[in-house]
Amino acid sequence: MVSAPSGTGKTTLCTNVRQTPDLIYSVSVTTRPKRPGEKDGADYFFQSKTEFENKLKEGGMLEYADVYGHYYGTPKAPVLQHLAEGRDVLLDIDVQGARQIRESKDPQIKASLADIFIMPPDLEELRRRLEGRGTENAKQIATRIAAADAEMADWKSYRYTILSSSMEEDLIKFRAIIRAERYLSRRLNLQNGS
Amino acid sequence: MVSAPSGTGKTTLCTNVRQTPDLIYSVSVTTRPKRPGEKDGADYFFQSKTEFENKLKEGGMLEYADVYGHYYGTPKAPVLQHLAEGRDVLLDIDVQGARQIRESKDPQIKASLADIFIMPPDLEELRRRLEGRGTENAKQIATRIAAADAEMADWKSYRYTILSSSMEEDLIKFRAIIRAERYLSRRLNLQNGS
Repeated sequence: MVSAPSGTGKTTLCTNVRQTPDLIYSVSVTTRPKRPGEKDGADYFFQSKTEFENKLKEGGMLEYADVYGHYYGTPKAPVLQHLAEGRDVLLDIDVQGARQIRESKDPQIKASLADIFIMPPDLEELRRRLEGRGTENAKQIATRIAAADAEMADWKSYRYTILSSSMEEDLIKFRAIIRAERYLSRRLNLQNGS
Repeated sequence: MVSAPSGTGKTTLCTNVRQTPDLIYSVSVTTRPKRPGEKDGADYFFQSKTEFENKLKEGGMLEYADVYGHYYGTPKAPVLQHLAEGRDVLLDIDVQGARQIRESKDPQIKASLADIFIMPPDLEELRRRLEGRGTENAKQIATRIAAADAEMADWKSYRYTILSSSMEEDLIKFRAIIRAERYLSRRLNLQNGS
């Protein structure tokens, strides 16, 4: 799973990483309104609050969070299904969600877990990136900067931390981590000596 | 550090990996005779048994082994020096040496350590590779095959295991591991939250 404050290019990074073979991008469920250009089932599964809360009650969410008044969550069944079939699953979630995933009792989740934090260079650079993106007003940017500041304190809870530089460099680092994790001896099932 | 049974292409792999920026190849000391084409100080430091044993008595070896009647060892001072200066050091050692390094009490060694095992596809393939290399006679090959068989049982002691395929593919995996290890949060010294 990967977490990063807004504006570190995490979403673009994940979009690129989605091309990696045998890596399945977990599509989150959200109750926030669809933005222009977003597609249901690709960017998010867009659901009503009632639908989301029912799913939650059934234990169907691996993690969820209430961010800026909207629910975001990771549906459990598809993740477990992919893992059981030997595929890696990429979760793009915030630090609250990451904490819930780490506390999961599910043995498949615990054995598979690897977490990466994308650290923006500093808050000033983050502000420049958010302003450059032009999708939020000044108040929304201030809210995101404050949230980012709080989230950045969590980096040590993640096994890996990438200091965000260029998109290309971040992507190279991200892919190296995903590759390397596959060669961990504890993840391998070999006949010899096992 | 990397270990592999003879014939997995480990030496060629390490030669290629030596080009990686900020990665210092630790040149071992040996008392075995120099082979044609080998250079003192590049392939090995070639020393007499007396020189080696004196160094050993002074505690100047990080690990050593007696292989086929010859000493091989890793001189301690240069490794600690490189680590102190923030560089990664590549150790190309056998499973006996790897065990000694893992048991090191030195805090710098303990904090830096990452180990990779290169696993040959199977003993038959290993035999074909050794025969193809043409540097050993039939008896020497039989000895190496037996040693490889014993060494292969150790793979689970290594954090990473690469199933050897082509040199290019092995090298890509090796480099991914070296990169990823650098992004481990526990290896980073960041001002924020530290």
